[in-house]
This record gives sequence, C-alpha cells and structure tokens, in this order.
Amino acid sequence: MSAKAAKNPQEPLSISKGRLEAFSDGVFAIAITLLVLELRPPEAVSNDAALIAALGALWPEYLVYFASFATIGIMWFNHSALFHNVRAVSYTALVANLALLLGVCFLPFTTLLLGRVGLMPSATAFYGLTLLAISICFNVLWYAAHVPAGEHGSVYDFVRKRNAWNSIGLIVYAGGTVLAHFRPLASIVLFAAMAIYYLLPGTVRSALAASADGEGSRAD
Amino acid sequence: MSAKAAKNPQEPLSISKGRLEAFSDGVFAIAITLLVLELRPPEAVSNDAALIAALGALWPEYLVYFASFATIGIMWFNHSALFHNVRAVSYTALVANLALLLGVCFLPFTTLLLGRVGLMPSATAFYGLTLLAISICFNVLWYAAHVPAGEHGSVYDFVRKRNAWNSIGLIVYAGGTVLAHFRPLASIVLFAAMAIYYLLPGTVRSALAASADGEGSRAD
Amino acid sequence: MSAKAAKNPQEPLSISKGRLEAFSDGVFAIAITLLVLELRPPEAVSNDAALIAALGALWPEYLVYFASFATIGIMWFNHSALFHNVRAVSYTALVANLALLLGVCFLPFTTLLLGRVGLMPSATAFYGLTLLAISICFNVLWYAAHVPAGEHGSVYDFVRKRNAWNSIGLIVYAGGTVLAHFRPLASIVLFAAMAIYYLLPGTVRSALAASADGEGSRAD
Amino acid sequence: MSAKAAKNPQEPLSISKGRLEAFSDGVFAIAITLLVLELRPPEAVSNDAALIAALGALWPEYLVYFASFATIGIMWFNHSALFHNVRAVSYTALVANLALLLGVCFLPFTTLLLGRVGLMPSATAFYGLTLLAISICFNVLWYAAHVPAGEHGSVYDFVRKRNAWNSIGLIVYAGGTVLAHFRPLASIVLFAAMAIYYLLPGTVRSALAASADGEGSRAD
Repeated sequence: MSAKAAKNPQEPLSISKGRLEAFSDGVFAIAITLLVLELRPPEAVSNDAALIAALGALWPEYLVYFASFATIGIMWFNHSALFHNVRAVSYTALVANLALLLGVCFLPFTTLLLGRVGLMPSATAFYGLTLLAISICFNVLWYAAHVPAGEHGSVYDFVRKRNAWNSIGLIVYAGGTVLAHFRPLASIVLFAAMAIYYLLPGTVRSALAASADGEGSRAD
Repeated sequence: MSAKAAKNPQEPLSISKGRLEAFSDGVFAIAITLLVLELRPPEAVSNDAALIAALGALWPEYLVYFASFATIGIMWFNHSALFHNVRAVSYTALVANLALLLGVCFLPFTTLLLGRVGLMPSATAFYGLTLLAISICFNVLWYAAHVPAGEHGSVYDFVRKRNAWNSIGLIVYAGGTVLAHFRPLASIVLFAAMAIYYLLPGTVRSALAASADGEGSRAD
Repeated sequence: MSAKAAKNPQEPLSISKGRLEAFSDGVFAIAITLLVLELRPPEAVSNDAALIAALGALWPEYLVYFASFATIGIMWFNHSALFHNVRAVSYTALVANLALLLGVCFLPFTTLLLGRVGLMPSATAFYGLTLLAISICFNVLWYAAHVPAGEHGSVYDFVRKRNAWNSIGLIVYAGGTVLAHFRPLASIVLFAAMAIYYLLPGTVRSALAASADGEGSRAD
Repeated sequence: MSAKAAKNPQEPLSISKGRLEAFSDGVFAIAITLLVLELRPPEAVSNDAALIAALGALWPEYLVYFASFATIGIMWFNHSALFHNVRAVSYTALVANLALLLGVCFLPFTTLLLGRVGLMPSATAFYGLTLLAISICFNVLWYAAHVPAGEHGSVYDFVRKRNAWNSIGLIVYAGGTVLAHFRPLASIVLFAAMAIYYLLPGTVRSALAASADGEGSRAD
C-alpha cells in the first residue's frame, strides 16, 4: 500500500479519515488547553490590593493567551471544514497534516516565551513566524487534500480560486512578523484582531468570500 | 458556505456535530485532568507526622479542586445533553462553543491562583467571575443551538421556558462572586455545594425541573 | 428528561453512551500520560557516571510510575469491557463514572507525592487509599451500569456473582494500605504485582473467573 | 469472556477496536503535545540580541524535540495503518498495545532528560533504548494483531515477510544506541533522519517495501 502510494500520491492510504480527524482533534484540544500553563499566577502577595494589581499587570499575557487560543480555535474550524468535504486522505496530506500539528504544538512554547520575556521584538517576531508557518502548512494541507479528491479542474484553477481570499492570512502573518521588530504590541493586537475578525460573521468577509471557495474561506 | 452562513445564521455550517463534540470532549477531558497540576505536594518533610500535617493543611486546595472538577463535570453533562437533541450546528453556536471552551480552559488558572495565594477575596471573586462567564457562555450556546433547530416557537417562549429553572446557576455564581469579598470560604463552599446539588437526583430539583425544558435543565 | 430521571433512575438519560466513552477515554488517556510529569530528570550532573548513578537512583519513582500506569491501563480495560455490553446510561452510572474519573485524575497527584517525599508510610497509605477509592467507584459504576440494563435477576444475585471474583481488588488495595504503615516498599510492589497479574492471561485467573461474570472479571 | 480469552488467546475480547483506537489516539496526541513542555524559554534576558542568542543556543533541544515529535507521529501512522486492516482485538494485542503506549508516554521524559543534561552519552543511549523498546513493542503488537485475524498462513511466513523490511527500524535504533556512547549528536541526527526518511515517499523505500506487506511497512 505504501509502495503504491509512493508511486501514485493520488491514491488513498490505508489510514481512515476518521482516525486522522480524531488524532488531529486531540492535538488541537490539548494544545489549546495547555496554553493556560503559560499564565503564572502571582505567588507572594501581601494583601488584596497587591493581588489585584499583580493580576492586572498580567494583561500582556492575557492578550497573547487570547491570540493563541483564538488562532488554534480558528485553525480547528478550518481543519474541520476542510476534511468535511474530503473523502480520502493521500500520503502527502498525511505528512502536511503532521507538519501543521507540529506548528500547533509549538505555539504553546512561543506563547510561553512571550509571557516570560515580555513583548520583546524578536520574541514577537518568533511568535509571528510560528503563525506564518502554521498558515503555510494549512495551505499545503488544503491543496494536498483537495487535489486527489479531484474537486478542482486543474492546479491553476485551484490556486486562482484559493488565492483570492486565503492569501490574506499569509500576508497578515508575514506583515505582523515584520511589524514585530518596530511595534511588538501592535503586532500582537493585529494577530488577535485577525482572529476576532474571522470569528465574526460579517459583511466584509461575506463580500470577499463570495468569490472564493466555500469551506476553506474562513481563515488560514 | 461561510458566506451564506454570514447571510443566514440559521443555515448549518460545513462542520459536523460529531467533530464539534469530539473536540469539546477533548477540551473538557484535558481541562478536568489538568486541574490536578494545581495540587503541589509538600517536598521537604522530615517525618511521617509532618507529612500528614502538611497534607491536611492542603484542605482549601482540595476543596477548590473538587469545586472545579465538579463544575467542569457538570458542564460536560450539560454540553452532552444539549447536543444530544441538536442536529445541526450554526455558525453562532460554533463561536459560542469556542467562548465556552475558553472559559473552561481558563478555569485551571483561576483554580491554581486560589491554591497559590489562598482564599483571598479578590482571588475568590476572580474564580466566581470565571464560573459566571462559563455559565453565561453556556446559556448563549444553548440559545444558539436550539433556535436554528426550530425547537421553540419563538424567542419569547424560549426565554420564558429557559428562565424558570436555568437562571438559578447565573444567580448563584453572581451572588457567590459578591459574597467572595466578605466571606471567601463561604463562597467556595457555595460553588461546591451547587455542583453537588446538581449531581444528586432529588425531589426539589424534579419539582423545579418539571416546568422546565428537559435536557438543559440539569445546570448551567 | 432529568425530571423523569430523578423520579425513575432506571430510565436512560439523554446522554449517549458514545460521548460518555469518548470523554472517559480522554480522561484515562490524559491521566496515564500526565503520570510522566512525576519523573524529574536530574539537572546538574558533571559527568556520565554521575548521570547513570542519578538515573539509577530514581528506581522507586520508576516503580511507582509503573504501578500507576498499569493500574490506569487496567481500569481502562475494565471500563471498556463494562460499557461494551451496556446499552443505556443511567443517571446514577453517570455520577458514578464522574466519581471514578475523579479518582483516576487524582492518582497523578498521589504518584507525584510518592516521587517527591519517597516511600514514606503515610504517603504510601495515601496512594493505597486512592487505589481503594478508585476500586470502590468502579464497583459502584459496575452495579449502576448493569442493574438498569436488567442483566441480573436481582440485586442479591448480582452481588453474589460479582463478589466471588471481584472483591479481590478491594481486599488487596485495603490490605496494601494497611501494609503501607509497616512496609511501604512491599505495599508498592504488591500494587504493581497485582496490575501485572491482571495483565497476564493465566490459569489461576481463568479458574477463578470461570464462576464469575465475564466482562467485569478482569480487575477492579 | 476473560476466562475464555485466557484459555484461547486467539478469541476476540469484549473490547471494541473503536475504543482501543480512541484511547490510543488520545495517548499519542497527548504525548506528542506534551513534548513541548521540554522546551524551556530563556527567562532573564536583558536585550533583543541576548534573546536571539539564547533562542539559538537551544538548537540541540529543538533537534531532540523534532526527533521525538516525528517518531511519535510515525508510530501513530503505523498504528493507524495496522488497525485499519484488523477486525478483532486479541487479549495479547491489548497488552502489547498498552506496553507500546507505556513506551510512547515515557518518551517525553527521556526527551526532557536530553534537554536538561545536554547530549551526554548515557542520556542519549537512554533515549535510544526508549526508541528501541517502542519499536520492539510495535513489532509484537503487529504480530499479535495479525495472527488472530488469520491474515498470514503461518508464523514462519509472517516473520519472513515482516523481517524483510521492518527490521530496519530495530537495527537503526539498536545501532544508534551503541553510537550514542561515542557520538551522541550523530546518534540524535540518525534518529531524526530516519523519521524524515520514513516521512518522504521515495523510490528506495518503495523498492524495499515492494516485497513487504503493505500497511505495516512504513516504519517500526
């Protein structure tokens, strides 16, 4: 089976879509829950006012926590929507999925890093690079999952339809990574804002999405 | 698909109920298991009597652990019962579900905070606010999941039937948060007691629930 | 539904067996994996020989780790086998299942405690008490899951058939807890040995199990 | 049922394949995600250049992280492919599966150890031994899962067909463990390289796999 798959990447593997979804759901669920380990409660506080001040001073960590949580949540939305319409899993899709999960599993580390050292330029850029890598992996997965299913006429058609809307994620993550070197806070706000934007069903999105393919158009 | 969903929130998304349940089950299971990381065993004890004393001194942490465990457990009960009768998942329900999971994932942090600083008023109130936020998210999810399914005549009917029984959770969590400023321990006992109360099949509950809708009436 | 369930505990809840299994599988899987956080690698070692010595000195922690791992593994075996033959989930079974999972989630804490303070009598007894509590919860769950299904003629028949074989777990855990006060190491070895014993398909077990009910007889 | 299974190991247990897959998927997903806890972000850095240097100095930890991530990922591939073609689960397969999961759960500890003490010979050999143990368990599981299903004519045929291709994993892990005593870094690179090799669908692999049985031939 793997020998044949190597010869012909279009041919479905002997791994069922159900288990790929179950394993991926598990990784998404664990990564999104582990993010909370980033938040370190203040330990030595003498009174209630000091505790409130200490909790308030954690606001950059809450912001990064929220940005990571919303990003993984949206990735899960997209992953679910993507495989909802795909029947068979190719070997390339399997490897692309593992690369995507590597990025998702790595995100708690970059989130923790930002919480520890604060919003320093290079830490924020490292965070943005992780988001960019996740986004690239998702686009590769999207391509790998759809081509074997024969849902698109040609690779050219595929890229044209996909590009119209989904390159926005790539551009925002790349731009935010560059911005991180000058305005780290603005960069994190941008990442969080994009996540919120994708979570809101709105008119701008609808208009943009109208010309794009359905199930993959929520984010990347 | 997402473009249409934005225009018509009643229309089911291309995400299956099965994967939403699997992902949510994963998050509930991980959050409920991660709670144990809150409990820090005593490290430097010279003899057996000192160890027993040190373990006994952890009782407020056991109490908070139990309150959090039972609350997440009941939330999972409710979540399961809610989706048992729902056929399709709307976009609004998907976002409300993510907001609910954000609250559930945040609970280990507030639990850990209470364990570290002890039952201080503001830490207890922060804990109560988290429970209140979870409860509000669950009510929004309940509404979002049922309205599209057309199981209720009108929004007015829906709110009237739901309110009779389920606003109790909201009231207890809000009241406990206020109480936390004066009697933190009483507040935690109240949260734990409510969880136990919901776990016991009893006559008072039955009487109250008799006039309410079935599957959502266990707690909120 | 819950109102009716309160009146008649025999009636199935609106929670599907599938989701109870998925949630329980998640908790078992996470608890068994979190156990590894108990093992703390030596940090400051100057050379290779010192590292080998430091790793070798961890043997009591490996032993406790193995005992906890095998116990959760066997509990999962039993849980799977139990629900394999059960069709509907009663409210009592749901609560008993949550109590069982509370014990399973608590086990990483008592395992960690043993690793930190060493095999002290009270820490070992605390560990044994946790195993005993898990065992009791499993027996209650077994009873709650089978009675509504009507698979046993009467409660008397049920207890008689069950007792023949399954009370061994209860006796060993209770005995090990008492033994912990005198010989902590022997107690841990006993717990690990019982887990290994249940994992080996052997003639003694078969002979004992022959007179007992099938799917619940592997351990408790 | 267990009594019968003890008498006749070929007979399927009363545990469904579905739950064994769900539990195993959970453990694989958690272990692969917990690996990230190995990576400790630098805490006290004065400026951006120091942070970049500190992050760069973590490269051996990234390498070990990647090797562990890819190994668990490939194990999951193999596990999925193995059970895709197996209909019933024997008691021996159940125990072999638990032993495999013990190895997978232990890997985050040996990964963490390497990250803490650096690429010392004995720590690297310990890591290699864990991989070797996982590989052996997988081979036993493969045998246990196929024999009862009657998919092979005889044990001799089975070993002959399996050996041609799958003993490579065993040899590489054993060789890498020996190599660790002389060149720890080369050993880790070897483990990572083997994982990458198995992830690439290539001609060498196809040629080798052509003579081997299909679904188990990706790695071990």
